[in-house]
Order: sequence, then structure tokens, then C-alpha cells
Amino acid sequence: MEAVHNYLTRRQPEFIDQLIDFLKIPSISSLPEHKEDVRQAAMWVSQRMENAGIENVKVLPTGGHPVVYGDWLHAGEGPTIMIYGHFDTQPVDPLALWHHPPFDPVIVKDRLYARGASDDKGNMLIPILAAEACLNTAGRLPVNVKFLFEGQEEIGSPELEAFIAGNRDLLTNDMVFSADGGQWRRNQPALLMGLRGLCALQVDVKGADGDLHSGTFGGAILNPIHALSQMIASLHDPNGSVKVDGFYESVATPSVEEREKVAAIPYDENAYCRDIGVSTVFGEPGYSTYERSWLRPTVEVNGIWGGFQEEGTKTVLPSTAHAKISCRLVPDQNPEKIREQVALHLEAVAPAGVSVSIQRLNATALPYRIPQDHPGNRAAETVHRALYGKAPYHIWMGGSIPFCGMMKKRLGVYTVNFAFGLNDEAVHAPNEFFRLSSFEMGQTAYVKLFHELAKSL
Amino acid sequence: MEAVHNYLTRRQPEFIDQLIDFLKIPSISSLPEHKEDVRQAAMWVSQRMENAGIENVKVLPTGGHPVVYGDWLHAGEGPTIMIYGHFDTQPVDPLALWHHPPFDPVIVKDRLYARGASDDKGNMLIPILAAEACLNTAGRLPVNVKFLFEGQEEIGSPELEAFIAGNRDLLTNDMVFSADGGQWRRNQPALLMGLRGLCALQVDVKGADGDLHSGTFGGAILNPIHALSQMIASLHDPNGSVKVDGFYESVATPSVEEREKVAAIPYDENAYCRDIGVSTVFGEPGYSTYERSWLRPTVEVNGIWGGFQEEGTKTVLPSTAHAKISCRLVPDQNPEKIREQVALHLEAVAPAGVSVSIQRLNATALPYRIPQDHPGNRAAETVHRALYGKAPYHIWMGGSIPFCGMMKKRLGVYTVNFAFGLNDEAVHAPNEFFRLSSFEMGQTAYVKLFHELAKSL
Repeated sequence: MEAVHNYLTRRQPEFIDQLIDFLKIPSISSLPEHKEDVRQAAMWVSQRMENAGIENVKVLPTGGHPVVYGDWLHAGEGPTIMIYGHFDTQPVDPLALWHHPPFDPVIVKDRLYARGASDDKGNMLIPILAAEACLNTAGRLPVNVKFLFEGQEEIGSPELEAFIAGNRDLLTNDMVFSADGGQWRRNQPALLMGLRGLCALQVDVKGADGDLHSGTFGGAILNPIHALSQMIASLHDPNGSVKVDGFYESVATPSVEEREKVAAIPYDENAYCRDIGVSTVFGEPGYSTYERSWLRPTVEVNGIWGGFQEEGTKTVLPSTAHAKISCRLVPDQNPEKIREQVALHLEAVAPAGVSVSIQRLNATALPYRIPQDHPGNRAAETVHRALYGKAPYHIWMGGSIPFCGMMKKRLGVYTVNFAFGLNDEAVHAPNEFFRLSSFEMGQTAYVKLFHELAKSL
Repeated sequence: MEAVHNYLTRRQPEFIDQLIDFLKIPSISSLPEHKEDVRQAAMWVSQRMENAGIENVKVLPTGGHPVVYGDWLHAGEGPTIMIYGHFDTQPVDPLALWHHPPFDPVIVKDRLYARGASDDKGNMLIPILAAEACLNTAGRLPVNVKFLFEGQEEIGSPELEAFIAGNRDLLTNDMVFSADGGQWRRNQPALLMGLRGLCALQVDVKGADGDLHSGTFGGAILNPIHALSQMIASLHDPNGSVKVDGFYESVATPSVEEREKVAAIPYDENAYCRDIGVSTVFGEPGYSTYERSWLRPTVEVNGIWGGFQEEGTKTVLPSTAHAKISCRLVPDQNPEKIREQVALHLEAVAPAGVSVSIQRLNATALPYRIPQDHPGNRAAETVHRALYGKAPYHIWMGGSIPFCGMMKKRLGVYTVNFAFGLNDEAVHAPNEFFRLSSFEMGQTAYVKLFHELAKSL
């Protein structure tokens, strides 16, 4: 292990330079004008994997952005693990809030600032470098490893499931480790027990054919903003529970064990509120804040618009009003079914005088759970204890990684979180950064993980 | 009268050319970058008034856009009337829907297309031309006339009341005729019995300090869009009546006579709905469509926005949500008081977990009523009967002309609608036009009005 450690230490300045190169590619998957940049990022990843000694590296097409595959399968009869990550990024707006240009990386002390630094380029580069260190020192990896990096995570991986289904033999493995994710705090590791699922829709409400004068017509026809507001208000009880028929029907009640795990995590409500700038938390009665955001489902309006939005006054009675809605889902809710229930609810409560149409958006993710004693989690915990000197928390995430649900559904394997992002790194926001110390520690952690898996599996 | 008539007929081509020149000035009062254009329009009007033989023409400053004053006061002991109109226009967006550039006037058969053609440049030029025709033929006007044209009607005339209050002697008159307004149909004149008043406010709802990830925080804090939707939904009963405390307190119940007048106006509900593209009318129970839009007050959301509004999905839990609200008011509602009641209502129903701030917008107008037998109305009716061969309908307008309430309050005089716009002329909308036949008939009508007033007052 000393040779690997020395290798990593010696090469760190180069690795940082390489990460900076990687971060300069504006691989924003949601914007059509960056399609070629996402492909460039795929090419960069495939080249870097080949340089690391990873074999069978291929950039493979999907219906959308490409995936990059590679493997090293000479460890013999032992298990084959897969490592997952993504090379696409979120958009950068609002650009004005960035202190440095988002694709012109800047290092300030331990922090490397750039869009994608933490989510997920810095994190996904880690296992490639760890593999290189093993291959360039021991000449081999302790376990068989397949790498799968995608370019559409930030848009919900719409074509990834079809790709997985169409490449079962290539992708078959015993368990996946996700280099997309993170730990609880700098000094506190975590095992991820689950993620929420997702479904989304847009509701479009139309009144008159065009915008009308609110003096001439106000009071005589229904304003679509009024209708939409009533429809949105009808989605929740005043206490925050969801009022959509059947919404909670398939929801697995959190177990005593789960609730104990959540309760074991320190929670300071004043700090929680202060950090995000709210006066109070708010949510479904009978659940704690972490339970509400991890173990309970939501219906959330992500955006609303209609009519006049500028300075001053324009007395218009608008023709249309719109809202974007998404739901976070927990076992055993089905994304398509919940999306349909919400759509039916909205259609049912739509008042006469407006017409309502619902767009079913294609961002979906299955809710995901992994057993605490899964061998991947046990191996991860061993590495955590060695690196951090303490046991990991057992946490959930309220967000969604569609890949995890897909792999379970299509290949029957679980995905273990093994990544080193931290929750202050402004992921999806201006001034995203990744810690260089996390970058280096992650490489060591992956080397240890490979060895631990060879031992324990 | 034949000389005047011949004069108008002979000069009509020039007058149309002059109106086209006037319409080329993009005098959009709401946009700061057009401030100089509004001033140019004022200069154009003052020059045209001088050319007409109107005296004491002055461009006078206000706190905002200037007004143009002029008079001709040599008719002797008789009454002094005032003529009102405005030379500013609405903005042109959405520009893409215009068939011709909005400030590059185009004539198609009887229609002159341009922003401001009907509202109000075409209409306000009419009395100037009528005065010129009298002065250039008879050498005099039958009555003393003051002209007052403003440049901020489309933004609610915020500085006009102070101007009137500060220039009482200059502006004193016996009654005003408004060249801003219209008739019922091409072949059906109307006397305007009243206008609704106006007040407006903006509500800003804030949750967290910044946009948050709807996975990480969804379910644990209150979404400001949810809060705003509930607040807006609380403004009305499902049947459309306003639920704001005290809102109807000062509302004068429509009299039997008023309701009879409204009922006398032909109303075809299918045509009404078809024209604007709605499936049904909607409003306060117990009132007809015209009663709802003329004699009853409203609370109307003119715009709403917050969070993500683009293509696809962005799972954001937005920091803020906003709405623009305006109320149409009827006697004896007070704009400032109603605005305060709505603000208090919104603050009272705001749920814990968000902060709400209310901006009181300065667009206000008093509700306005004029007696049917006002001498100005009687004179207008005589002209209508002569020109149209039929009695006018007695109508109200659901919109607001702040000037009318101000003049009544500050100088104690009523304003009589005497203008020739029609309701299909796309006022405030793309492809606004004015009918050249209305333009010419209006000139004749004003000449007749001057003579009628000299006779009857």
C-alpha cells in the first residue's frame, strides 16, 4: 500500500491540473448548444481512462448524450464491481452570482471552484485515478472493475435505462459504487440508505384566447391565475400533507429502525433554519425534519408563471397560467402512477371557465433503498472507520439518482454511495467547489475499498 | 355649417397624413427609454394646436411626462368647456404578433394600423381639427374651450392630480369632454355613465434565502409558491365573490334604474364567450355579465411568477414567489382603503414559514359616475341622435380613466365621454387600429357638439 500511497502523493499536482482541464469543458447536458461539449467531456474521460490503464474503453451512443464504458477484469474469480459517475453538469445561471467564470477553474486554498467540481467531475475522476495508482504500482486491481460514466444525469438520465437494458451482458456486475454523492460532514462519513424517487409534470391553464383588459373583462370571466392558485392550494392540507387521492397509498411507513437511525443524527433546528434563511421548518405533522425530507414523499411546485411580471402595473387579465410540479417519492410509490394521480387531481379540481392541460414530463426516478448490511456497505464502512476514525451515520437523501433505481430494476444490483462531496459545496448553484483534500482522500479511499472488497467478498 | 363641413372634407387627406406623422412618435410612457419620445409627442401636439389657431399653447411640466395646454376663450359670457385626451401610448409587446411595425402606420381600407391609433392619438387629434375647422371658417368657436392633453394616461396619470391641484385657475371649466373613450358599436352611440376605479399592489413572498434543491429540502420547509397560491386562493369564494374583509362595505348597491339600463343593452352570451375564446362566463352570483364588469368591484391577479419557468424540469424549491394584483372599484370604494384591506388580508392569511411584503403600487383611480341628465350628456345625446339616427345606450366601462375622478374631486366638474374608438380596435394589444371613417365623423361630431353646447348651456 505504501507504493500506491506514494504514487498518489507524487502525482497529485498533475491530477489537479487534469481535473482543471476536465472542468474547463462546459458539458451542460440540459442545453442543446452544449451537446458537443458533453461529447467532448466523454472523449476526455475515455482518454483519461485509457491513460490510467483501464481496458476496453468505449464511448457508446444512447438516444441522447453518450456513456463511457471501460473495465479491468483480470482479478480472477472474485467479484466484479461497477463504478458509476457522470461527466455532465448543471447550467450555470445565474451567472452574475459567480465570483469566477464557472468554466475557468480557480483554486483558493483547499477549494477548487468550477461548475461540476463537486458534482460530479471531481468525484468521478477519483476512482479512475485510484485504479491508475493500483495498476501503475501493483500492476493489477484487487477486484474486477467496470466503469460506467454517463452524460445525462443532470437531466434525469432519460435514455440510460434503455441503454442498460440493451447492454445487460456488458454491464453485468455484483454491485455498484457511485462516485456521485458525498459524505455527511468533513469529519463524519455516512452510508446512504436510500434516495427518493421523482416524477414531474407541467400544468397549463388557459382562459381567454388572448390577454384581456382587466377593466373590460375583470369580474366577468375566470382568471386562469386564480384557477391555477386554487388548484395548487388544493394539493396540500394547510399542515403540509398532500391531499391528492391515493398519494400515500403505497407509501411504506418508516420502520422503527429507520426512524431510530434518523433520530441518531444530530440535528440543530436553529442552525438548520439559519443556514437557509427561514424562520421555521414546515411539513407533514408527526415527522422530524430529516424524516420529512428523506422518508416522506412530496408534491412541490418548482415554478409558476402567468401574466405581467415586470415593474409597475399592467392591468391585464392573462390568457394563461402555468406551473411546473415535481414529486419526490418513497418506496413503494410508482413514479408514473403518482404522476397520473396528481394529473387527475388537478383536472378534477379545475374550475369551469378555464381549460387545463397536463404535460407528463419525462424526468422520473424510482425511489431507492439499500440494506444496511449489504456487503458493499460493510466494505465502505470499514474504509470509513479507517479513514475517519469513526462509524458512519446512516442517512438518506431526499434527492434522486435515477441510475440507482434503474440498476436495481434492470440488473438486480444495489448501488453503494462512495463519494466525497460535502453539502456546503454549492452543487447546482453559483460558486460550486470541490475540496482538494477530499479529492486526494477519495483516491486513497477507493484504493482501500478495492482491497477491502477483495478481502471481504 | 356647410363651410365647416367642406373644410373638413377638403382637408381630410392632410389630416390623415398628419395623424400618421403623430403616430410615428413612439411615445410609450411606461418605458424610461421613450421619455424623450413622449416629450416629442407633446411638442408635436402643441405645434398642431398652434397651427389650428388655438391660443396660449404651452407644454407644461409635471413630476413626470409633460402636459399640453391651450385655449380659445373669445366666445363671450357662455360656458367654458375642457377637452381631454392623451398623447402617450401603451408598449407594443408582444411585437412578434404585429402584422406591421407598430410605429410605422399602415392604411388598409378604412383602417389605420399603429400603436396609439385609437388610444388615443387618433381620438385626441379630432377635437383639435374640429376647432381648426371652426376657426378657419367662422373665425371663432361657438363656446370657450380649454384643451388639456396628458402624456401619462397609460401609466395611471400618477402626477396629473398634483398638476391639476397646482393649476386650478388655469384649468377651471364648466365641464370636460373626454376624447379618450369610444362608442358602443359602429352604428350605436353610447353615453358613458361611469368608470370603475383602481388600486394595485404587489405581493412578494420569500422562503429561504436562495433557491434550494427540492430533493434536499422538499417537504421540510414551506415552498413560497404554495404559500402564495393559498393566499391568492383565499381572496375569492369558489363562486367568484371577493372574500377580503370589508371589501364590499362601501359598495353602492346598483339601483333598479342602473340595472334596467344595463339590461336594456343587447347581450348574447354565446357571442361574448366565442369572441374571447372562453367556454363560459364566471363571476359574482346574482349579477349579469355587464353588471359584473361595470357595477361590481374585483380583485384580479394580473401576473404571477416564481421559480423555474423554462423547458423541461428543474427540481428547485424556489426562494421567492410574486404576484401583481389590481382591484377595479365602484362607488363609494376608496382606492387607498381597499388597497390596504387587500394588503392586510394577504398578510393575515400568510402562513408561517414565509415572509410576505406588500408593495403598494401608485396606480390608483377613483371610481367615477356622472348623472345621465348632466348637460354635457344631453348635448352629446343630441349630437348622437343627429349623427347615428338613434338614441345612445347608457353604458359603463369596467376600466378606469384616473383623470375623470381627479377632475371631479379637484375642480368639481364632470367629464363626458365624447370619443369614437370602438371595442374591436385592439387597444393595448397588437395591431391596434383606428377607423378613418370614425376619425372624420368625430370631427363633424365635435363641431356639432360645440354648436349644441352654445345653444343649450
